[in-house]
Amino acid sequence: MSRISVANEQSLAPVARQASIDIAVDTNGPGFTDITPTIEDWIARERLTDGLLTLFVRHTSAAVTIQENADPNVHLDLADAFEELAPRRPGRRHVEEGPDDMPAHIKAVLTDTAISIPIRGGRMILGTWQSVYLLEFRDAPRHRIVTAHYLGS
Amino acid sequence: MSRISVANEQSLAPVARQASIDIAVDTNGPGFTDITPTIEDWIARERLTDGLLTLFVRHTSAAVTIQENADPNVHLDLADAFEELAPRRPGRRHVEEGPDDMPAHIKAVLTDTAISIPIRGGRMILGTWQSVYLLEFRDAPRHRIVTAHYLGS
Amino acid sequence: MSRISVANEQSLAPVARQASIDIAVDTNGPGFTDITPTIEDWIARERLTDGLLTLFVRHTSAAVTIQENADPNVHLDLADAFEELAPRRPGRRHVEEGPDDMPAHIKAVLTDTAISIPIRGGRMILGTWQSVYLLEFRDAPRHRIVTAHYLGS
Repeated sequence: MSRISVANEQSLAPVARQASIDIAVDTNGPGFTDITPTIEDWIARERLTDGLLTLFVRHTSAAVTIQENADPNVHLDLADAFEELAPRRPGRRHVEEGPDDMPAHIKAVLTDTAISIPIRGGRMILGTWQSVYLLEFRDAPRHRIVTAHYLGS
Repeated sequence: MSRISVANEQSLAPVARQASIDIAVDTNGPGFTDITPTIEDWIARERLTDGLLTLFVRHTSAAVTIQENADPNVHLDLADAFEELAPRRPGRRHVEEGPDDMPAHIKAVLTDTAISIPIRGGRMILGTWQSVYLLEFRDAPRHRIVTAHYLGS
Repeated sequence: MSRISVANEQSLAPVARQASIDIAVDTNGPGFTDITPTIEDWIARERLTDGLLTLFVRHTSAAVTIQENADPNVHLDLADAFEELAPRRPGRRHVEEGPDDMPAHIKAVLTDTAISIPIRGGRMILGTWQSVYLLEFRDAPRHRIVTAHYLGS
């Protein structure tokens, strides 16, 4: 059995404003692009304090995810897992854009188009090992847009 | 290496109100139901301008997802992928509601119960090829509810 | 074809405040921990009425999910499905923390780091069979933090 407890209860600053930005990522094949510093720079520049940040990727063959930032082998093993879960193989119907396209849609549906992250005291409440990544699933270079939207104080 | 840049930085209208609606979908077996026009009608009718829209499906064997709206073959190939990832097979414990029930729970846990989409200037910021779908995973007809919730100007 | 209709359209109370809490879960191996009552207690204690609740897990080998709360066999079958989708096997690169670690990252990337749930009239709008769970994917006991964040009236 697990034990549940509660800590760090707090009222945050009242809700007052919204802000939004588009983060463009020019990718070069499948993989992880860390967009955490770009988001942190924007939070600092706009003085976002307490609120809710939502990241939304405007594509159906790419994704956003939060994953380990310490060992790059995690990203390589995750890439292998994506290939195993959504292999390139004969028999798919949607093949006009190449053999990597339909597997990319499958990987996208299994991961995330949007993620919301609370912000407290001017910082995303990420754990020690968490960073925010754009996941590219296509082979060819792509211009990807992640919209960041903030609601808060 | 990917290249990251920032564009379209903007402050949005202040936060003032919330609104909510329940979208009922009567399904007829597994598949994708496009609920984008229903959401767009509501956004226009309520004059929602800048804010955050959250879609929440109140069931554990259905989901919401954002996927390609152009080639219907993408939906057929995704349906195949779901069957491969969560096959109907002997050996499952939860079988009282039929052989399609436990695979439906697995598909639901791998996709999304909730998705948040920023709204700017009265429109969801969907990419060109993105639409919002209810995913039905059960065989028999079902009455599904997707709650849409808006926080914004 | 599915049939779509709209019901229960409502304007909610204006947006005024935020609140946040950390829910600590001390786990003892893989499985589901129901955190719904803990969240409901907090909603009642803080008198949260209409708004958006976001749950965010600050770890990359655990997750939050919404799943069936009636038959415990659903959780056992889901656990089996996770093992099948992300087996412990030779050939992974990230092995320093044990053979259960990389599969835990894969399971985490396939499920959810964050979920947002609308609140209406002082209650999460969960369906009859829905509860909110922390998913532990590691073998050894762990101290997990789920941050709950509220924006609303």
